[in-house]
Amino acid sequence: MVARDRSIENLIERLNRLPGIGPKSAERLAFHLLKIDRDEALQLARAIENVRAAVRTCSVCFNLDASDPCGVCSDETRDRSIFLVVEDPRELTRFEDVGFRGLYHVLQGRMSQLENIGPDDLTVGALIKRVERDRPAEVCLATNPDLEGEGTARVLAERLQPLGVKITRLARGLPAGSSIAQVSSSILADAIEGRRSLS
Amino acid sequence: MVARDRSIENLIERLNRLPGIGPKSAERLAFHLLKIDRDEALQLARAIENVRAAVRTCSVCFNLDASDPCGVCSDETRDRSIFLVVEDPRELTRFEDVGFRGLYHVLQGRMSQLENIGPDDLTVGALIKRVERDRPAEVCLATNPDLEGEGTARVLAERLQPLGVKITRLARGLPAGSSIAQVSSSILADAIEGRRSLS
Repeated sequence: MVARDRSIENLIERLNRLPGIGPKSAERLAFHLLKIDRDEALQLARAIENVRAAVRTCSVCFNLDASDPCGVCSDETRDRSIFLVVEDPRELTRFEDVGFRGLYHVLQGRMSQLENIGPDDLTVGALIKRVERDRPAEVCLATNPDLEGEGTARVLAERLQPLGVKITRLARGLPAGSSIAQVSSSILADAIEGRRSLS
Repeated sequence: MVARDRSIENLIERLNRLPGIGPKSAERLAFHLLKIDRDEALQLARAIENVRAAVRTCSVCFNLDASDPCGVCSDETRDRSIFLVVEDPRELTRFEDVGFRGLYHVLQGRMSQLENIGPDDLTVGALIKRVERDRPAEVCLATNPDLEGEGTARVLAERLQPLGVKITRLARGLPAGSSIAQVSSSILADAIEGRRSLS
């Protein structure tokens, strides 16, 4: 049995460490990177290097951006009375896409008993200090509507309560465009629970 | 709407060009590469660079290796009387894994009407010349047991026929429609064992 070149094995191993990339996918991707135009492959390497050189974590809200403070935090036209608390920077970009104009706080994850992630592993301490210092009118807890996200929101709500800030949570209900006959019971229960008045 | 840093967009776009990586996966991977330890991320970039610097295409059999001729072609202990013709180098490694000890010829793909890939887009001409020059006793066509693979084998058999070499095909112990890169070693070993004559 002739071994593959070590550089190939190394690349496969590196790709395999990425989330959602199993051993077979890693192998397929490695040979793809060997098959395509050399420049095309090196562009990907350079893109990784550039992103790590260019992008830093905002010391105020923990967003990722080329500047610190980030573009959002340093934008004087934004509404500073509301902080939207998100798990990750890519969720932040979703809210940007739909036109949210307040400020953010990026937790850098969510609490999880299973993965042994507590408040101290996240930017919770920094959020509390920031709310004490900047006194926003409202903190909206925009963690995901699942087990860990709800648990994280509950802990955050407890910690923020003493500061006298208004604490909100994103609405839960029917996804736009969904069909009532087909959504899950928990979605439907949320939709009834959170029904709002039209009159 | 605040734009994301251009380096992030660029990385997402580069990842999205990889096979099987859609826009959502590309975004997830990009933010993963921003979140993990900087060295860990740069190791991946370096692995891509290294593989492209270290690995070249064998001028004899078109395998990928650090040397040219490759480790297989320059190994004097191998059985030079049989050429196993494969589509891709990663399939070659599967045959190595199950202990095949002959030589290979890597087609660098398969013929496909749909994708407009003909013999001239593959290393078919080089295979013919090589068989004429080195006169192996047998050429085993180990293209995949699916539509394009069978078609490719048929065309190769026609071209090799006039050279008077024994032409074989892997046994149809392989499940039709499967991928050589993914079947178990025992299926693959059976397929080598039961290869049948086409001439």
